Formats: sequence, structure tokens, C-alpha cells
Amino acid sequence: MRGGTAYLAQVVVRVEGCVAPGVSNVPPVKTDVEIAQEATLRPIGEIAEGLGLTAEDYEPYGHTKAKLSLGILDRLADRPDGRLILCTAINPTAAGEGKTTTNVGLSMALNAIGKKAMTTLREPSLGPSFGMKGGAAGGGYAQVVPMEDINLHFTGDFHAITAAHNLLAALLDNSIHQGNPLNINPKRITWPRVMDMNDRALRNIVIGMGKVGDGVVRESGFEITVASEIMAALCLATSLEDLKERFGRMIVGYTYDKQPVTAADLQAPGAMALLMKDAIKPNLVQTLENTPAIIHGGPFANIAHGNNSIIATRTALKLADYVVTEAGFGADLGAEKFFDIVCPAGGLRPDAVVVVATVRALKLNGGKDKKELANEDLFALGTGMVNLEQHLENLAKFGVPALVALNRFPSDTDAELRLVRERCEALGVTVVLSEVFTKGGQGGADMARAVVELAEQESSYSPLYDVEEPMHAKIETIAREIYRADGVDLSPAAAAQLGQINADGYGNLPVCMAKTQYSFSDDPTRLGAPRGFRITVRELVVNAGAGFVVALTGDIMRMPGLPKVPAAVGMDISADGTITGLS
Amino acid sequence: MRGGTAYLAQVVVRVEGCVAPGVSNVPPVKTDVEIAQEATLRPIGEIAEGLGLTAEDYEPYGHTKAKLSLGILDRLADRPDGRLILCTAINPTAAGEGKTTTNVGLSMALNAIGKKAMTTLREPSLGPSFGMKGGAAGGGYAQVVPMEDINLHFTGDFHAITAAHNLLAALLDNSIHQGNPLNINPKRITWPRVMDMNDRALRNIVIGMGKVGDGVVRESGFEITVASEIMAALCLATSLEDLKERFGRMIVGYTYDKQPVTAADLQAPGAMALLMKDAIKPNLVQTLENTPAIIHGGPFANIAHGNNSIIATRTALKLADYVVTEAGFGADLGAEKFFDIVCPAGGLRPDAVVVVATVRALKLNGGKDKKELANEDLFALGTGMVNLEQHLENLAKFGVPALVALNRFPSDTDAELRLVRERCEALGVTVVLSEVFTKGGQGGADMARAVVELAEQESSYSPLYDVEEPMHAKIETIAREIYRADGVDLSPAAAAQLGQINADGYGNLPVCMAKTQYSFSDDPTRLGAPRGFRITVRELVVNAGAGFVVALTGDIMRMPGLPKVPAAVGMDISADGTITGLS
Repeated sequence: MRGGTAYLAQVVVRVEGCVAPGVSNVPPVKTDVEIAQEATLRPIGEIAEGLGLTAEDYEPYGHTKAKLSLGILDRLADRPDGRLILCTAINPTAAGEGKTTTNVGLSMALNAIGKKAMTTLREPSLGPSFGMKGGAAGGGYAQVVPMEDINLHFTGDFHAITAAHNLLAALLDNSIHQGNPLNINPKRITWPRVMDMNDRALRNIVIGMGKVGDGVVRESGFEITVASEIMAALCLATSLEDLKERFGRMIVGYTYDKQPVTAADLQAPGAMALLMKDAIKPNLVQTLENTPAIIHGGPFANIAHGNNSIIATRTALKLADYVVTEAGFGADLGAEKFFDIVCPAGGLRPDAVVVVATVRALKLNGGKDKKELANEDLFALGTGMVNLEQHLENLAKFGVPALVALNRFPSDTDAELRLVRERCEALGVTVVLSEVFTKGGQGGADMARAVVELAEQESSYSPLYDVEEPMHAKIETIAREIYRADGVDLSPAAAAQLGQINADGYGNLPVCMAKTQYSFSDDPTRLGAPRGFRITVRELVVNAGAGFVVALTGDIMRMPGLPKVPAAVGMDISADGTITGLS
Repeated sequence: MRGGTAYLAQVVVRVEGCVAPGVSNVPPVKTDVEIAQEATLRPIGEIAEGLGLTAEDYEPYGHTKAKLSLGILDRLADRPDGRLILCTAINPTAAGEGKTTTNVGLSMALNAIGKKAMTTLREPSLGPSFGMKGGAAGGGYAQVVPMEDINLHFTGDFHAITAAHNLLAALLDNSIHQGNPLNINPKRITWPRVMDMNDRALRNIVIGMGKVGDGVVRESGFEITVASEIMAALCLATSLEDLKERFGRMIVGYTYDKQPVTAADLQAPGAMALLMKDAIKPNLVQTLENTPAIIHGGPFANIAHGNNSIIATRTALKLADYVVTEAGFGADLGAEKFFDIVCPAGGLRPDAVVVVATVRALKLNGGKDKKELANEDLFALGTGMVNLEQHLENLAKFGVPALVALNRFPSDTDAELRLVRERCEALGVTVVLSEVFTKGGQGGADMARAVVELAEQESSYSPLYDVEEPMHAKIETIAREIYRADGVDLSPAAAAQLGQINADGYGNLPVCMAKTQYSFSDDPTRLGAPRGFRITVRELVVNAGAGFVVALTGDIMRMPGLPKVPAAVGMDISADGTITGLS
């Protein structure tokens, strides 16, 4: 692959939720897909019945997947919610932290110690499966299944988003083609098209070429489906009506007079909602140990908020005593957005946080070479610990009790584990070891017991900022309190956009920071806990339908590319249905 | 809408399988979606059990849809096939013939008279639903349900085709971007991208713009998903292995040395097959009267063969005593391709043909003005009858007994009906009246009894041509015997392509004629039974994966556009799930 930006894109999409090949904490005797295909799944009806659901509450999609009715939330409105556990992590590194694996494994472990627990997760994106290897349904013996379906079309939610997004784009270009009654400036269109595929050739395109009936010529582009504002809106919506209203507010471009043009102006929300009538229903599956799991929605954790749908989490809270949900990337992005965007939008009150880390990744944060991570190095580990410590200090600011789950690798030494434990205990934070990758739920029993104890503590959750503060102040607060920046600079373009945002009445939306996930700063090479830097906001984008303003601090790739040898070329399915090459 | 070609595209996509609004044979008291939403559907498990299927034979998709296992064909291999009835029509007109409605209604009627019958149909395309009104799941009281699902995402088959098609495109452009090891000439790429949307702005585009990591600049375009060769291959495949082999043969472009480059050269077939692992399974639904129906695949009837999947038909033949399947457009295209392409590929032996016609459409064929079709006109009717008569004469050449089903309208007079009856009887063909649109299965009892009687007759089916004849001879045979042309002219380009086709070893594939559906000739304005014309083949395209050579006789629109007021703007779904605007 050529170009640093393109490489970044691959990592953006793939690094989450997977233990990278070659760094898993068990010899790769079996691949994830082999383990998954050997699992004994229970019929999804049994899983649903175990949750107290009746036949009216779910629609089967095959024998091991189901869509849950939105009516469950109404029917069980009076039932008290279960405990909500957020699973987050240190800044991701090339070493892989195993956050999704831990998220899945913790729910299995909670069940193993006799608690009624569920996991909620984001749906993986189809396109990247064909690029770099690495699934997004957990790994080893802590996976959600059927992983081959979850990693491919699943129940079609992303295809529905693609269709709704591209219908709006087609209606927009058609309106211009048919005489442009809305006075749309083709040079100010902000709504791209999307495809769930890694296809670099579609990033920058010219459309509308050809003859008089073939539309209006203009520059445009495709983004990957998970980058669609529809994905973010789906995950923040609380009902189909709410989602339709969000569609109506979505800005697709501006008129020649610089007035926003919305999907409502194009009369698109009804048809878009029709396309989303099933996609809005959360998906029920199970873990390798038959723990119920809801997997629904998958917004980016940079340009969006990186958490599964609010509908999924709220449904799970009605059905289980413990719900483990995952935030994308490190806690500086995922957890901050979960507490500042998701919880207020969904009326959620988190009870505990689990911060996933590995000794290997902490050593990388301390400057250790990637090839030498298997060697004990207390100096590098001690240096890298500042990353974990800053995340723990940050999480305390949201008032939610936290613990650290160390994803255990065979190369971890006792001295290394002791160092991590002592440093965390100095902050009053417990460290537990997790071996769910190799042992499933049994490998997380200590973690589960610690989480139960933690969730018994009083949580005094509150967001970091008051959403009614000025936009610039909200960005400052995040940058200073979470990133530890000395301040925020706006580019001239961003400063102009800020004025427009305030004038258009979007100033009271929460902020969605789009920042590199590799560093607290906006420089991906500054690991650990950098100090003495400022954050530069290059662009501010209103996502009026999702309900936040994206503050872009760098190049964010919205359409990944395929590598030189795509994973697709190693994939196959035999006549008897055996799948190879999917991981 | 601007441009005659663009208008044609709308008609190409929408006219099939619907009774056009305003010409239905019942006062439009209820819309199709209203009738469909009022229907009492049986759980799909009950429908499957009624066919003798067990839980292993099907996977539910919601409560009223299911995917059938390919294992059924193996398990029931020894069971004798049911009777196969082809439903075809006169050349389509703006008046609407109601072919899908008749197809669905006939299966209902066969059940009503005590026969075990099923219908097999093509799946409708999603994109056109948002353009012109008009569904593709039958109409009135002869519909397949749940029509709103069937007309939208259904079980995701078309999305899977879109993904498999675009994965191949991404792998192709990536191969060029990554150093072009296959020596592909970017100017000779024949594989477009696809989207299931009416989006004229994507017909002609430039891709790969931007920076060095953003691919290679070249002209390209999007077609609608149903135009994908993958759609045609899916419908002609007999197993997943067969489909994968077809993928391998698909030509995506040519090298600088003009050698074909295939999907196999790009190592794509395994991943493509993986994406199609569920889409290859036929979909079980039901009619408004709970008759089992299999709906699977939806290839164009011009650039492809216009019939549901062979797997669907073969599965239905194992499960029912009578299977009614529909061929796209008029019998000159749909039936010819069914007999010459589909039946040989699938080892099918049709037992009877039903030719759908209306008095109104025959009068249009006889020169009657569209606005005056409700007035009796025996002269116009008598003149237009030549269209039906030529179809009947043609069908006799395939050796399959035929009857005419007249889709009854209130404006039909006794004298008009008598005229049609007498002219057909002169050819030895029975005419039956169908009122399935207004009365459901009861309105087709006479038709059903006549079909049963017809299917008892000896069928001496054989294709029109020997596939081993030279390519030009096969085209000549179709043009002379079916269209009644005086001969075939090849454009210089087509002549050159013919040489290449023969040189590359594709000369022994069957021919897929891409011709206007409105006329026997290649001029859409020449209705009735034109004489004294020649057919001009402008281009020959090898679809090596589908397994035919497309002979293009005119402009065929592969990506429709939206009209000035798209149907999408009238669509909505309310909080209680009531759908409006979908028809």
C-alpha cells in the first residue's frame, strides 16, 4: 500500500476488537473461525426464552440470529434496569489489547459465576473483512457466534443503512437534475455516497458525466458505510420516530445562499425510515458459551461515537442484571463519547468501567520495540504505565468506579504484573487478570467477581461538560481535562465554521472529537502521556441528525483501501459449507 | 425526466409484473399495500411443513419468510418432479398485462381446485421502488406477501450480489493500483460497479482521482444490481460450487495484449462465493391465500434471461405437483430465453405455457389510443390480435402446449372476448378468463382447470436451436423464427467481437438477445406483428460466468434514473408500523 494516510485507514478500521495475528495470547492452534465453527450453538429461540421473551418479542433470522422487537422496551418499561458496565481500553497499539474479546469474555464470566449477564457490541463492517485479516466478534474462546454471519451480512443492517444513505444521495442529485428547485449549490454538497467495501478508487470521483439525461457533473466520493451519519443516528435514536426526525434534520448541502438543505427538504425521511424499519431492531446472538449477546450498529469511534445502539443497550438492561458494552478505541475517545454523548442521549447511567490493557501494549507505550515485546522490560513497562494511569485519572472525573483488566499473555512475567498492580493500586484501582481468550468464561471468573463488587459501589456518573456551554468551551474542556493539552487552536476554516454553527443554532450540540486513537494528543506518534502540546481543530462539521458537532483534528480516512494482498484472496467456502480465510 | 433513453429505462424496470396504476381491473378502493397488510399470513414454518419440510430444511427470516436449504434437492432427488407451467405474455404495453398477478393467481387457483401448486417468481429490485410507482409482487388479491418486505430488502439476496460484485471491482482496481501484475489495460475494463438504486448520476463517472494512494484514474460507471452478471449466474447455477466456477470464468477486462482477465485471475471467486452462501438459498413466502411461493433471483429480461433461479424452480418441482414460473417481458424475449437458455442449463422440461394478454393491450397493439382503451373497438382488437397470434405460433415451435389467459377488465365487451376466443381457437389454442386480481384464486378456477388439462397433454419440448451451431446462425434462427425478421446485420464492432468470441472459445454458448420488449422488431414503436425488417446487432458481449453471449440490438439502459417526482417522496412508515406509498 502506498501513502501513510491509506495505511492509517487500515488500522483505523481493523485494530479494534481483535487480537492481531501473531500476538494472540495462545499458540494459534486453531483459528477464530475454526473455534467458532466447532461451537455448539443453542437455537436462538431458546436464548430468547432464557431471557423471558415470548415469540412475539423476536423474529428469527436463521436458527442462531434474531431481531428483537422494539415493543420489549415498552412492555418492560417498569422493570428496573440491570447494571451497566462499560468496557474501554488504553490507547490502542499494534500489539492489540483484546477489548472486544474481554467484553465478550466478561459477560461469559459473569454468567459462569451465576449472574444474569449480557454483552452488547457493535456490528463489524463487511468491507474491511476483505482487506486486512482480523474479525470483530471477539477472539479465541471469547467470541460471539455465528461469527461468519456476524462478520459478513449479518441481518442486513449495514445494507439497509447503505440503501437509505444512497437513496438520499440519489434524491439530492435528482433534485438538481430536475431543475434544482431547492437552489442547491453543487459545489457545497456535503452528503457523499457510501459502500460497505474497502475501495480507494471511489474516494474521489466525478459523477454525472455523459449525456443530458445522465445527471449533473460534479465532484463527489464514496465513504465506507460505517462512516455514514445514518449509522451514528441509528445508534443514538430511541425509536423509529426519533430516527425519522433525525433523518429530517440531516444536512446534505447548502444553497447558493449558504442555507442548509436537509433530508426533510428533499422529502426523503419517510422512505429512509421505511428502509430502516428492520435495521432499527437490535440483533440477538450468543457467545461461544451461549451467553445472550446483542449486536447492533457500528459507528466509527473517531468521526462518530463508537458505541452500539442505545436501543440495544436499553433492551439489554431490561433483560439482564449485568450488561457489558464496549466503547471504541481508547478511553480518551470511546469512553469520553460514551459518557458525554451516548449516556445523555439514551438516559443511561453507567455503574462501572473496565479498562482493558496488556503488559505488551503498555511496554510499547513505554518505547519498547514491537519485535521485543515478549522480553521482560520493567523500565519500558513503568514508562508506558503513564498511559493507563492517565486514563484511570480521566475516568474518575466522570464519577464511575473503574478497574483494570489485564489481558494475560504467556510472556507476561510476575514482576511485570506486580508493577502494573502496584501502580494502579496507588490510584485506588484494582487490577484483575483475564484469560478469557484461552479459557472462555472460566478464565474471567476473578474479573467477573471484581466487576460485581465494583458495580455495587455508588456511581456518581456525570458528563464532563454542560452541553449548554459554548462549543469552543466544550472542546477546550475535553482537550485540557482528558488529553491534557495546553489549549485548543482553531484553523481559520474551523473558526468560520464555528461562527456558522452558532448562527445556525447548533451550538448546543455535544462535541464528537475526531482525533487519532494512538495518542492522547493529535499526533499518533506521541505515545504514553504526552504533555506540552496544543490540539488543532482543522474543521467543524455539524451532524444535525446524529446530534453532534464533529471536531476534526487531523486527516480521518472515511474510505479504506485494500492492501497489496487482500484477505479476500485467501477466503473460500467449500461445497459442505466449511469456511476458510475469515478471521 | 429528460431524454428518451432515460424514459425507456423506467419502463424497462417497472412495467413488468404490475398492473399499472389507473388501469387495474377493479376500482382502486384499496391499494396493493393495504390489501397485503390486511392479509392473514400463516407462520412460515406451517407453510414449510405443509410442503413436507422439516426444521433442517429451512431457516426462518422473520415469521413469514424463510430460506430453503440446498440439501432439499439432494434429499428428494428420487422424487418425481411436478408439472412445470411457464407464464409468459404478449409484448408488454403501457396498458399493463398483469403477468405476475396471473402467475401468482394461477398458483392460488390451482390450490383452490385441489391441486398442490406453487409459484416461483423473480425478486423485485429495490431501487426502482423509489422511482415510479408499481410493485413486483403481483397485485390486487393475487399477491405474494409480505409484499413490503419482498419489495424492500427481502432476505438480502440483492445486497449480497451487490457486495460480491463490488468486491470484485475493488480487487480489480486494487490490482492495478498495486503495480498491475496482471497487465490489465484500464481502458479495457468491462466490469462496472453496481448499486440497487435508480441513480442516473452514477452512470458515467471518473474514479481514482485524488492523491497517490487513491487508486488509478479511469472512466467507469455504476449499473443497477439486477444488471450484474452475478445475478444472471446465480439464477443459472445449480449449486454453490457451480456458482463459484461461474465466478471464476467471469471476464472483468482485458490485458494490454487483449487477453481476457477473469475473476479467477484476481483470486476472487472464493470470497465472492462466501458472500453468496445464503443468497444462493431460495426464499419461501406465501400468497395472500397461503399458497407456498418461492421467490429467488431477478435478472433483467433483456441483457439477461429474465427468470427466477433454476435452484428455486427445481426445488419447487420437488415440493409441488404444479409449479408456475414467470418469464420476463413478452414471449419473444422471456419464453425464448426460458426454453433456449434456462431449461437446458437446469435440465428442466416444461409441460405447458400460459400466455397472458388483455383486450386493452391487444387494442393498443392494434393502434388504439391509450386514452380510449375502455371503448369497444373490434377493428383495433382484430388488428392487434396478430401480436398474440405470432406468440402462439412461436411457442408451438418449442413443442410445449399453450393456452391464453385473458386478464379480465370491466370494460371488456362480450364481442371483444368472442373475437379473441375465435381467433385463438382457429390456431387450436384455448382462451380462459382470469379474474384473480379482483377475486384471488376463485377468480382463476377455469384457468386452473384448463392448465391442468393442458399439462396432461404430451409436451415435446425442445430448444429452438442447437447450441453447437455457429453464433451467427443461432442469432439468425431467433430473428427469423421468433421475430420474423428478414435477416440479421452485424455492426462492424459486433462482427469484430464475433471473431474474438469464436477465437476465445465462447462460440458454443447460447445467445441472450437484448432487444426492446415492446416490439418483435428492434424498433419499440412497431407494435403488432411487424414484417419486412432486419435486426441489427450492434454489440456482442460474452458473459462467460452466466454462460451466454448477449447480442445487443439497441440502447439498453443498465442504470435507471428517478423521475421528477420520485415515489420515495410519498413513502412513509408510522410509529405503529403502517406503511404508505409503497405499491
